[in-house]
Amino acid sequence: MKLPTLTDIQAAHLRISPFIHRTPVLTSNQLNRIFSCELFFKCENFQKVGAFKFRGATNAVLSLTDGQKKAGVVTHSSGNHAAALSLAAGINGIKAYIVMPENAPSVKKNAVAGYGAEITYCKPTLRAREEACKAIMESTGATLVHPYDNFNVICGQGTAALELLEERNDLDLVIAPVGGGGLMSGTSTCVKGINRGIKVFGAEPLNASDAWKSFTTGILTPSVNPLTIADGLLTSLSELTFSIIRKNVDEILTVTEESIISSMKLVWERMKIIIEPSSATVLAVIGENPELFRGKKVGLIISGGNVDLTRLPWKEGGMA
Amino acid sequence: MKLPTLTDIQAAHLRISPFIHRTPVLTSNQLNRIFSCELFFKCENFQKVGAFKFRGATNAVLSLTDGQKKAGVVTHSSGNHAAALSLAAGINGIKAYIVMPENAPSVKKNAVAGYGAEITYCKPTLRAREEACKAIMESTGATLVHPYDNFNVICGQGTAALELLEERNDLDLVIAPVGGGGLMSGTSTCVKGINRGIKVFGAEPLNASDAWKSFTTGILTPSVNPLTIADGLLTSLSELTFSIIRKNVDEILTVTEESIISSMKLVWERMKIIIEPSSATVLAVIGENPELFRGKKVGLIISGGNVDLTRLPWKEGGMA
Repeated sequence: MKLPTLTDIQAAHLRISPFIHRTPVLTSNQLNRIFSCELFFKCENFQKVGAFKFRGATNAVLSLTDGQKKAGVVTHSSGNHAAALSLAAGINGIKAYIVMPENAPSVKKNAVAGYGAEITYCKPTLRAREEACKAIMESTGATLVHPYDNFNVICGQGTAALELLEERNDLDLVIAPVGGGGLMSGTSTCVKGINRGIKVFGAEPLNASDAWKSFTTGILTPSVNPLTIADGLLTSLSELTFSIIRKNVDEILTVTEESIISSMKLVWERMKIIIEPSSATVLAVIGENPELFRGKKVGLIISGGNVDLTRLPWKEGGMA
Repeated sequence: MKLPTLTDIQAAHLRISPFIHRTPVLTSNQLNRIFSCELFFKCENFQKVGAFKFRGATNAVLSLTDGQKKAGVVTHSSGNHAAALSLAAGINGIKAYIVMPENAPSVKKNAVAGYGAEITYCKPTLRAREEACKAIMESTGATLVHPYDNFNVICGQGTAALELLEERNDLDLVIAPVGGGGLMSGTSTCVKGINRGIKVFGAEPLNASDAWKSFTTGILTPSVNPLTIADGLLTSLSELTFSIIRKNVDEILTVTEESIISSMKLVWERMKIIIEPSSATVLAVIGENPELFRGKKVGLIISGGNVDLTRLPWKEGGMA
């Protein structure tokens, strides 16, 4: 199993730079005061399609051979990766086939269709998705671009940390969310490749803590029916991402649903930016473990900003 | 009646620069495509206290004589100006007295108290507020800092446009919201002082359209019981702001409540930034009058981002 290196991430960055936004690194004096540390938010909520996923998808698409490009790409996803792959393929004149569960929200179906991808609907089970994907690969020759269990996707995701460390070379720590582990793998490979002295922490919902369990026991243990508001973090590590994370991550910390929601609201209120629940886990880690971060310079990967504004996780009309 | 000039705004900018945030000018390819023009958002939602009001309040406080500074400042407001004046005074070691209606939301009371201001509660009528203010002025010698009917406040508010035009000297048009007219006065004085060829438009809720009426008829006509979601724009022009606006503004355009709400939601969804309803009026003007802006380079003053996140103006659970 070939693991990515800093050099691979740097090559990915050169490759995707003409297509991605170089997102800002924001700070907030108010949040620094509240948490008694210096926070640097790498804002992938401002990335194209509203999430870091566009980096990995773009790198995967640009890394195809000419023959592969002609046959197109395929994935199964109802989330940010589907939109990211559709746009990355569309920009480069490549056909994208997206397998989605028939009960996916119409706003997500419309987004993917709007980027010009061809959608195949299936029953909402992992098996149905994988079978639909396989059938498309066989009939079209399209290349599967897995949302995280993919070398080129991981290298692309690592470029957010690369830009963060280009702007701030004095960080003590970097925290990223962990779902399937693509972002965590790319981030940790990049940070440790630049400076092994910088700590790398993963933030994971307590209610979907397969990465924490796998990391702690040393045995890859997928989640069973995870249920968390952080809908980008429901997936479990793959062998590839688990190997990278074991090698490069210092610690994985779990956070409660309450602390994800209050951290998300705090960022909305104080920073006036929209971040999704998955992104809020990184701040929740600091809120739940203040002693680990006091006085430190901490980089936070804000993974995305795609939120259904009509279904917010705090009570309407209350003061909380 | 002395009207401010570009030179006054430039002097205000020098004075307040060490204290304010230089806010970013953001763009959005998606919104440019939707509206068929190039939009440049001057983001005062990222200003201290979450609104442009901190500029005017800071300029007013720094323009006091030493004797006036010792006696403090006073205003009546339950909104962004109260928070702005409290913080501006507090930073400079000056006492602030804020008159607030006793039924003001506790979140606003807490914000003002948190900045160290002394709050006096009164009945929720304009007369009660003015009387309470007068009593404080008589007993303490504090200087009244009106939210908009004040030369130094207007000069401070004009510095947002100054920064916008420093970054983009090729704009065809600038749009700002109109409430009491402080921001509109400062913006229009600044823009026309730099280049009379740049058009300046005001955006006003149809449900609080005193500025539109006054501008159109030439007779200062205050609003009677205005009711709009744009809670920063309920106030009416003063003689001072009306004089400046008549001289420098090309047109005032009114917008419906529906279009304020949909414009606000569009910015949240596409740009991932939080803007308040008053700010959304400037984009609503473009949505309601696309022919005026097609192909143009348009600067938009985004006035603030203070929103009660538990009371959003769109339906919960819907898809709209």
